[in-house]
Amino acid sequence: MASSKNSISAKSTLSKAPSAKPWGGRFTEPTNELVEAFTESISFDARLYKQDIQGSIAHSKMLAKIGVISDQEANSIETGLLDIRAQIDAGEFEWSTQLEDVHMNIEARLTDAIGEAGKKLHTGRSRNDQVATDIRLYMRQASDDVIALIKALQENLLASASNEVKTILAGFTHLQVAQPISLAHHLLAWNEMLERDVERLEDCRKRINVMPLGSAALAGTSFPLDRDMTCELLEFDRPSRNSLDSVSDRDFLIEFAAASSVIMMHLSRMCEEIILWASESYKFIDIGDAFCAGSSIMPQKKNPDIAEIVRGKSGRVIGNLQALLVIMKGQPLAYNRDNQEDKEPIFDTVDTVARSLQVFAAMIPSITFNRDIMYQSALKGYATATDLAEYLVRLDVPFRDAHEIVGGTVRYAIEQGKSLSDLSLTELQSFGTMIKQDVYDVLTLEGSVNSRSHFGGTAPARVSEALDAAKQRLSW
Amino acid sequence: MASSKNSISAKSTLSKAPSAKPWGGRFTEPTNELVEAFTESISFDARLYKQDIQGSIAHSKMLAKIGVISDQEANSIETGLLDIRAQIDAGEFEWSTQLEDVHMNIEARLTDAIGEAGKKLHTGRSRNDQVATDIRLYMRQASDDVIALIKALQENLLASASNEVKTILAGFTHLQVAQPISLAHHLLAWNEMLERDVERLEDCRKRINVMPLGSAALAGTSFPLDRDMTCELLEFDRPSRNSLDSVSDRDFLIEFAAASSVIMMHLSRMCEEIILWASESYKFIDIGDAFCAGSSIMPQKKNPDIAEIVRGKSGRVIGNLQALLVIMKGQPLAYNRDNQEDKEPIFDTVDTVARSLQVFAAMIPSITFNRDIMYQSALKGYATATDLAEYLVRLDVPFRDAHEIVGGTVRYAIEQGKSLSDLSLTELQSFGTMIKQDVYDVLTLEGSVNSRSHFGGTAPARVSEALDAAKQRLSW
Amino acid sequence: MASSKNSISAKSTLSKAPSAKPWGGRFTEPTNELVEAFTESISFDARLYKQDIQGSIAHSKMLAKIGVISDQEANSIETGLLDIRAQIDAGEFEWSTQLEDVHMNIEARLTDAIGEAGKKLHTGRSRNDQVATDIRLYMRQASDDVIALIKALQENLLASASNEVKTILAGFTHLQVAQPISLAHHLLAWNEMLERDVERLEDCRKRINVMPLGSAALAGTSFPLDRDMTCELLEFDRPSRNSLDSVSDRDFLIEFAAASSVIMMHLSRMCEEIILWASESYKFIDIGDAFCAGSSIMPQKKNPDIAEIVRGKSGRVIGNLQALLVIMKGQPLAYNRDNQEDKEPIFDTVDTVARSLQVFAAMIPSITFNRDIMYQSALKGYATATDLAEYLVRLDVPFRDAHEIVGGTVRYAIEQGKSLSDLSLTELQSFGTMIKQDVYDVLTLEGSVNSRSHFGGTAPARVSEALDAAKQRLSW
Amino acid sequence: MASSKNSISAKSTLSKAPSAKPWGGRFTEPTNELVEAFTESISFDARLYKQDIQGSIAHSKMLAKIGVISDQEANSIETGLLDIRAQIDAGEFEWSTQLEDVHMNIEARLTDAIGEAGKKLHTGRSRNDQVATDIRLYMRQASDDVIALIKALQENLLASASNEVKTILAGFTHLQVAQPISLAHHLLAWNEMLERDVERLEDCRKRINVMPLGSAALAGTSFPLDRDMTCELLEFDRPSRNSLDSVSDRDFLIEFAAASSVIMMHLSRMCEEIILWASESYKFIDIGDAFCAGSSIMPQKKNPDIAEIVRGKSGRVIGNLQALLVIMKGQPLAYNRDNQEDKEPIFDTVDTVARSLQVFAAMIPSITFNRDIMYQSALKGYATATDLAEYLVRLDVPFRDAHEIVGGTVRYAIEQGKSLSDLSLTELQSFGTMIKQDVYDVLTLEGSVNSRSHFGGTAPARVSEALDAAKQRLSW
Repeated sequence: MASSKNSISAKSTLSKAPSAKPWGGRFTEPTNELVEAFTESISFDARLYKQDIQGSIAHSKMLAKIGVISDQEANSIETGLLDIRAQIDAGEFEWSTQLEDVHMNIEARLTDAIGEAGKKLHTGRSRNDQVATDIRLYMRQASDDVIALIKALQENLLASASNEVKTILAGFTHLQVAQPISLAHHLLAWNEMLERDVERLEDCRKRINVMPLGSAALAGTSFPLDRDMTCELLEFDRPSRNSLDSVSDRDFLIEFAAASSVIMMHLSRMCEEIILWASESYKFIDIGDAFCAGSSIMPQKKNPDIAEIVRGKSGRVIGNLQALLVIMKGQPLAYNRDNQEDKEPIFDTVDTVARSLQVFAAMIPSITFNRDIMYQSALKGYATATDLAEYLVRLDVPFRDAHEIVGGTVRYAIEQGKSLSDLSLTELQSFGTMIKQDVYDVLTLEGSVNSRSHFGGTAPARVSEALDAAKQRLSW
Repeated sequence: MASSKNSISAKSTLSKAPSAKPWGGRFTEPTNELVEAFTESISFDARLYKQDIQGSIAHSKMLAKIGVISDQEANSIETGLLDIRAQIDAGEFEWSTQLEDVHMNIEARLTDAIGEAGKKLHTGRSRNDQVATDIRLYMRQASDDVIALIKALQENLLASASNEVKTILAGFTHLQVAQPISLAHHLLAWNEMLERDVERLEDCRKRINVMPLGSAALAGTSFPLDRDMTCELLEFDRPSRNSLDSVSDRDFLIEFAAASSVIMMHLSRMCEEIILWASESYKFIDIGDAFCAGSSIMPQKKNPDIAEIVRGKSGRVIGNLQALLVIMKGQPLAYNRDNQEDKEPIFDTVDTVARSLQVFAAMIPSITFNRDIMYQSALKGYATATDLAEYLVRLDVPFRDAHEIVGGTVRYAIEQGKSLSDLSLTELQSFGTMIKQDVYDVLTLEGSVNSRSHFGGTAPARVSEALDAAKQRLSW
Repeated sequence: MASSKNSISAKSTLSKAPSAKPWGGRFTEPTNELVEAFTESISFDARLYKQDIQGSIAHSKMLAKIGVISDQEANSIETGLLDIRAQIDAGEFEWSTQLEDVHMNIEARLTDAIGEAGKKLHTGRSRNDQVATDIRLYMRQASDDVIALIKALQENLLASASNEVKTILAGFTHLQVAQPISLAHHLLAWNEMLERDVERLEDCRKRINVMPLGSAALAGTSFPLDRDMTCELLEFDRPSRNSLDSVSDRDFLIEFAAASSVIMMHLSRMCEEIILWASESYKFIDIGDAFCAGSSIMPQKKNPDIAEIVRGKSGRVIGNLQALLVIMKGQPLAYNRDNQEDKEPIFDTVDTVARSLQVFAAMIPSITFNRDIMYQSALKGYATATDLAEYLVRLDVPFRDAHEIVGGTVRYAIEQGKSLSDLSLTELQSFGTMIKQDVYDVLTLEGSVNSRSHFGGTAPARVSEALDAAKQRLSW
Repeated sequence: MASSKNSISAKSTLSKAPSAKPWGGRFTEPTNELVEAFTESISFDARLYKQDIQGSIAHSKMLAKIGVISDQEANSIETGLLDIRAQIDAGEFEWSTQLEDVHMNIEARLTDAIGEAGKKLHTGRSRNDQVATDIRLYMRQASDDVIALIKALQENLLASASNEVKTILAGFTHLQVAQPISLAHHLLAWNEMLERDVERLEDCRKRINVMPLGSAALAGTSFPLDRDMTCELLEFDRPSRNSLDSVSDRDFLIEFAAASSVIMMHLSRMCEEIILWASESYKFIDIGDAFCAGSSIMPQKKNPDIAEIVRGKSGRVIGNLQALLVIMKGQPLAYNRDNQEDKEPIFDTVDTVARSLQVFAAMIPSITFNRDIMYQSALKGYATATDLAEYLVRLDVPFRDAHEIVGGTVRYAIEQGKSLSDLSLTELQSFGTMIKQDVYDVLTLEGSVNSRSHFGGTAPARVSEALDAAKQRLSW
């Protein structure tokens, strides 16, 4: 590893802190270097190079079409830019901090390479609309990538669920045993969360995919730009409607960060369950060795580190959302340099969400479900008490009265150290004379689970249908 | 005013703090009162009463249809509930903290009123799916209300913009004079923000409008619920697909809070501009007296208090979003009592956004634009320098060279204490011999603004079209 | 309950939303009422009445001393204000929204009651320094109250710990069994968190307890105020040093909110453990009935609702901290009306922290520790493997080699289905010939725990000392 | 520039995203690489190398003293570690991702270099207490560095203020002209904010400077560690009191992040004023060229980029605070891997605060104050109206009546287009017959400013004293 960056930053506590007497007002770095280091963005916006080149090529083709530059110049620009892209791809491009950002680095190199025509590229454009275009192209791709990663995770979840339709475990509320449920039903609950995440990203993508190019600094330009042409070349849905808004709008980053925060919140909730389920006291699951870390001392230990790190990473994504809102809050129109600070939080968000989804998805197939232990968990805690109450209601006892009767029955069973299905019919009838032999059908875990057969319920037959439907929606 | 609540809370620093020796471990309140006060939710969930009654009526009708209760019982329940609603509407209902929440308060009263049938209402239902249904009905209405309020604000903005298409002011970047723009164009930038806000709420509404009713505690119920019927009665788009997810999902609150945070961020940005524009140094606008506050000492002073308060209120909405994310992060399935804490942040969000939009919208028509001062602002700062550069480009000077030339010209003009249009043709030609008499057309504010006539630009003719299109979209 | 406020707010979805066609731009409320409702603060700042009166009395005494008002006038003001305080205490004061805030409500009433002298009270003062003084007096009391509540909780924790010094349970890392520890040691870890919380609040209090009174609107006043006198009367540590800063500084609110966020984070962590420990799978504890809630259906169920609500409430306090930072960020000097928005978040923070501490403290003595189950938990998971490694190190095996050896031993034990202490000496020696009979001393839970006897370790003798020291620090 | 890291990360939209069909569940990276990349921390914790080595040397000396290792081994360890430090300093150390973190990288290298003794270093220690020690050593230095940087900024502010004691400008409330103030007084308000920041960091440092070393994994160790010795060697104030708490406590990071958020909020407020003051409409100041950025088109333009970026950077620091709170919220004791996520937010916070302070401090001496324009600003807006009211009070008019009278006077002056001091004595007397010739003394800017001479006021004589006192406190 050992990137030069890391080596450097490791050298001192504060990479840029003066080594002595900073309070003397005499800084070890000359001012211009200090300012240069503070204002540069190339260290993080270099990752936009593909989008920047893509946008510039489209812009130059359009300039040629409207006669602002010649076709030859446009061709020369395109060839030059593609060549630069190849250099960057190959890791052979030298970025310069003095040239501040990705835009100036590329344009300067282009002019070096192709001469005069390079100086014409920026006609009718400003860095304000240029960077807005780049970041939208980038976020469009990021949205598509994250959506694909969510779907990969869903696919793995649905595959796991397929084997666990009839696996029964305790459903919890308040982390207390509540009612028996199908494990597949539980995993499908996770899938529902993820489906909403995809929807939210797709909605966000609509607002990302609007083209600011042509807005120039803030007011548009006096050249008769053909924005429909660039829009088509860059596959945007439409050109933006207002130049001032176009250079200052960062809503789509906040919306993406908010959608990402919800994704991470979802993963964090799933991780919480995985960590619980893998703990000594639950033992519901075993996580594949590859996704656990050992201890430096106890070889038997398999810590669910991936799940813990993903849970922890929810913090930074939520923090990034907050950062973006704070940055934008209170800025007057149009562009202010504060906006330079939007990139690192959003890039970190994209990376964190993508990597978390990827590793989480890979972990799912490695999980083994301990079906017996799960089944045992549902036998505890009088999980079928509700079933007894509903049985009574079907015999015409008003629900609130049935609830009272079951209360007494459970209290008696606890005193006797028995489960509900261990009670004899006589015992049960002492609480309600209407109770018949068929009560035992509803007191078993299977009876309980099977009876919840309406749409959305946990009955295996219903869960099986839900699973098929989920698979179908996923493959659309 | 003087609500009893306020009077009470004013009585001590900490309303519930023991008056003496809290460290003694002996609390002045008996434990059960302490716990009751801590866990009750009726003080804030009472506002869900309409939705709770609406949901219960639909549920009881469905129970009758599937034969779990009789038609007569369903009628009795409906009549009883409507009667309770009327009492609450009239402010004659006594809420009880001991009955904890809105659900139990209403059900208890119903049973008091109609007897046996009341005890049957909760059949096949749990408070978990009941509250989820209530809050979704509430948020659906809130979304529609907020959308309507945004549109009311848009209407006022477009009305103001209609009179200011040809009003020229300085467009700013970095709060420095950049280029002349049309005031209507500026106001239309605000309108763009608001249009996205409406879109986001409409997208959010799709995810709100899904019916959890029928999910019971977490696993569904053994009664053959007709969820399509309740769904239709309550005008939801579809019943939810997974009972576990249904009782634990609060994504829609977070999504609404995120959309609201963006709305407030937008209003905060507009307020920032209004405050600047109303300041002594700008004097671009006068705000109507009704929307300003005086000083306790200086009668000439008109502080833009409404704008300041709205700007300040962005903080609480953003804080509420963070609160909701923190509450949900790391909760295992299904329902946990943490979720009770979702209501106050979201109610406060709804109220804050609605009231801010309402008062902000009302303030807009009260604003007078000082057109002369705005025009003067655009004459400063060499706002047409870009136009000169673009003029040169049209004479075949590469853009980067044109930029250099204009740099020299402006430096010269500053030294001479002249504006660009004050320079003689000879002076101008000393920087570029290709410059002709027609250069003056582009150096005027009008020339500059008119030339930015492509789609999205600030030319009045184009702005006029944009305004018409905005009005049309609004009236859809 | 049924405060008029709640009844009112329940009447419509949006309390202030117009009932129809809000987009029509025609609001049902006349503008002045709309603005009045939006800008009033009396609904939440009324709770500052005691502080407001306290500050006004000190101010008037000082004005008399420097001869700006007469002694008689000062007496009349004091009597009048004390009378008003008595009325408010008794709930007989009618607050008026038209008089905006607590300051004007009280001053207006005073002038009604005592005439001319009332009009002189505000001499040399502005609402800007008045409200800053009020809120500092309030927060000083709130800090003291919260500190007292933390100490009450510590007292209860230490009392519980006193009985559990020799109780052994599994210590967890990654929620996996790690090493056996003393339960009192675990509870003392909680106590450490709380001690830091007290320290932070005490540090914060130093910065709260500085007197802004005398700063007037922003620049001070032309009257020769004796700020040392008011400072002494109000028991502030010192008068503030800069009038501009004094009216705009809200750091102390943010610092209090940050300290409160850490308190709630601590309580949330403790609650997480309590919820786990009370779950069916752990059963480490039973929480007193009074602090649990039942289910509407399962009478055996005791949900740890208090712990869940406290955990959930961490969200709102963290959200309030963020709200305050957003409100202050970017405000130019000196006072801006945004600051009105500081009160509700901080009042909510004070209330939430105080109530959470109070109910959490009350819950602690109700918890029963299931010592046998805890002990059993430590027997699982090869919790003494580290002890074996350390035993080897004492026999001169380098630590990393010892670690290797223990790795093999544990793997063997797992295969044999034995615990480490079940292995015969011969079996153990097959992994290391240096192992002797005395190895069994370190493989028992008691041996393991007792051996960790250095300062800060979990050996009961050491824990006992730590407990005594903690009690002593608490009683200082 | 072009660090290898940047080149790499620029290669694809999502650095780790699979290049094709991620939804296929087949990842291009083998699982172990995926997991390794996800869990490694060396890319960011390498910066702890000095602290890690410092801690290890102290630990080994102590192990020698208590006889667990020999003196020779301890010497060998020290020499080996110092050698490694020199390599890292020189940029010649190869970090390995497979060795996960800074601790294992260094220990592995040590054992390579010195053999057996290296394997003994980790005796009686765990990575849990090791990393906690490292990060506390790091944060102690970071606190000292940031304090020094704040003081450097204060020094520059006080130097600027020294020249501006008698410079008068408009003091603003609500961004409206309020009263004339001394510019030095305004700058001293900034200084007050910074002094509190120093205090908060000093308080935080007390809680940082506690030594966790010796807590091992969570329970301490069976070796008779001399924690007082390591404590002294590492210059900690005291060893921590509870091993469980020691490995899980991250309060000090949150407290540092909160203090940093307030620092950035302060800088953001100052930047807001600098941006306003540098704008065309205010022109109060000129910022040195080195701290401004030009436009790509308008050479006359000097955008206050440094101030804008600092203002924007407040967002990320506030976001980092939120991230840390979210990470910690709800973690059960003791160490969980979530905590690995604490490092990047806190390192970013340290870097951002340090760099922002440094560049902001450097900018201050470059600012030129346009005294005439500032003076003119105070002549507007009837800034001395309060002085007239206070004049009347001194003639025995009750304050509220004086306020009324001045209201009428100002209204009259506005109608006449005059300032207050332009009104003739006769005109003034028409509003109050008690007004005498000496009224003009209080209506001038100088008269107004000079009269506010009590402690904390803006009178130049008083400001001069305040400035001296501030300098003295700074040089302590």
